[in-house]
Amino acid sequence: MDILKNTIVLIGAGNAATQIGQNLKKKGFVVAQVYSHTLESAKKLGKSLRSDYTNQTDEIVPDADIYLFSVKDSVLPELIKRIKPKNGLWLHTAGSIPADIFAAAGIKRYGVIYPLQTFSKTRAISFTAIPLFIEANNADDELFLKDFASVLSKKVFFLSSEKREYLHLAAVFACNFTNHIYVNAIEIIEKEGLSKELLIPLITETANKIKKLNPKEAQTGPAVRYDRNVIDKQLDLLKNDPEKYELYKMLSEGIYRKSQLPPAENL
Amino acid sequence: MDILKNTIVLIGAGNAATQIGQNLKKKGFVVAQVYSHTLESAKKLGKSLRSDYTNQTDEIVPDADIYLFSVKDSVLPELIKRIKPKNGLWLHTAGSIPADIFAAAGIKRYGVIYPLQTFSKTRAISFTAIPLFIEANNADDELFLKDFASVLSKKVFFLSSEKREYLHLAAVFACNFTNHIYVNAIEIIEKEGLSKELLIPLITETANKIKKLNPKEAQTGPAVRYDRNVIDKQLDLLKNDPEKYELYKMLSEGIYRKSQLPPAENL
Repeated sequence: MDILKNTIVLIGAGNAATQIGQNLKKKGFVVAQVYSHTLESAKKLGKSLRSDYTNQTDEIVPDADIYLFSVKDSVLPELIKRIKPKNGLWLHTAGSIPADIFAAAGIKRYGVIYPLQTFSKTRAISFTAIPLFIEANNADDELFLKDFASVLSKKVFFLSSEKREYLHLAAVFACNFTNHIYVNAIEIIEKEGLSKELLIPLITETANKIKKLNPKEAQTGPAVRYDRNVIDKQLDLLKNDPEKYELYKMLSEGIYRKSQLPPAENL
Repeated sequence: MDILKNTIVLIGAGNAATQIGQNLKKKGFVVAQVYSHTLESAKKLGKSLRSDYTNQTDEIVPDADIYLFSVKDSVLPELIKRIKPKNGLWLHTAGSIPADIFAAAGIKRYGVIYPLQTFSKTRAISFTAIPLFIEANNADDELFLKDFASVLSKKVFFLSSEKREYLHLAAVFACNFTNHIYVNAIEIIEKEGLSKELLIPLITETANKIKKLNPKEAQTGPAVRYDRNVIDKQLDLLKNDPEKYELYKMLSEGIYRKSQLPPAENL
């Protein structure tokens, strides 16, 4: 059977679901239906995918080939229970939820397709270069899922639920925590009337650098040099901003500890 | 006078000095001499720039047009004192040191040219798109420095020593702290036998995203959603790694506080 002929129901209409839906459509899949508990979200994504849409679990079509769940981790278990037809292959896209969450709800065929990327609704992103980590509970569906995921991306890997948890944890560091650091950096310069644009070449180079260099080698700045003078001056600039002050201290200590220099007892 | 005809002595042969030297040469300037306190470093950079080199301050040529200091902040004051000829325009490249450090040593004409970028010796980088922040102690040298810096980069801005300190602080966040977060993320997945390459598309997209989106809007992941279930699971994965555990906690709390959701009293 042509892989593109599989009927897909997309459960969820948030950031990840939106980008997954757009990429499925772009690659020639038909998303038959979009479900979201918010009718407005279901409608918006459904219309853009030319799919039916609903906010009622009992209206979800019972005979799809794939039920693809991309929702908040916290609502997934309850939602699985509420959807009555238990046919087809059930997949979720969550980093930190084991595949066998479906087993508990009596699903026979299930698996995971986890895209290692950050998604926002308004920022279109191609799946072609995004690593997809897959897992299924039987050999046939493993093969099927490999073919299915390979239509979306050139980088498809089998990964256990256990390892996927660590991958997700690393992603939280590499993406969410990094973005939080950007937020702080931009706050500092915007407070001085300077534009965030000024930081873009530095942010881009910092990200590009680690493609080539080991990130410990790539490290620069006052903390890795243990330039106490600069560290003290910069802590002083932050003395009225306890959150940034503590971040600065903890991150500088961390950088120093990971460097090759003697211990940072008095940093 | 043709700006390229100015004789330059480059004081320093570290990461920044190396990249500055290479860019000066590439744009047609002649670096007459390189000084470093380490003869080996002076020689290496000197040879690659086809410049004389020395590790003796009393061998520094006395009649250059520009003395460009790119050394560790902590050695700059002492080095300025030790160099006897006080002619020409004296410049440093440090974010956190005021321009008037030169005045204290009896220098008449001085200023700053601060490149907002991260430099490693082995990674060649073009200055064309790097913002350069300049300052001089008199109007003539301001104009001269504008012309000089504009040969190197298309983005030249006047900035006071006071504002430059905050810019440098923001750069420490955007670059050094970000890189430290990368180090931690890569440690997590390498411990699981997974390659750092897997994180590159995520790291690149996270950096690219904030060119278009406000970084608070761009934020994703468990902390901004206050997905307590994932947060607790991830803290548990880190329970034997106190440094990453504390980082995770502090950064997740910070993300949550900056989000629009209710207060994170019990995170």
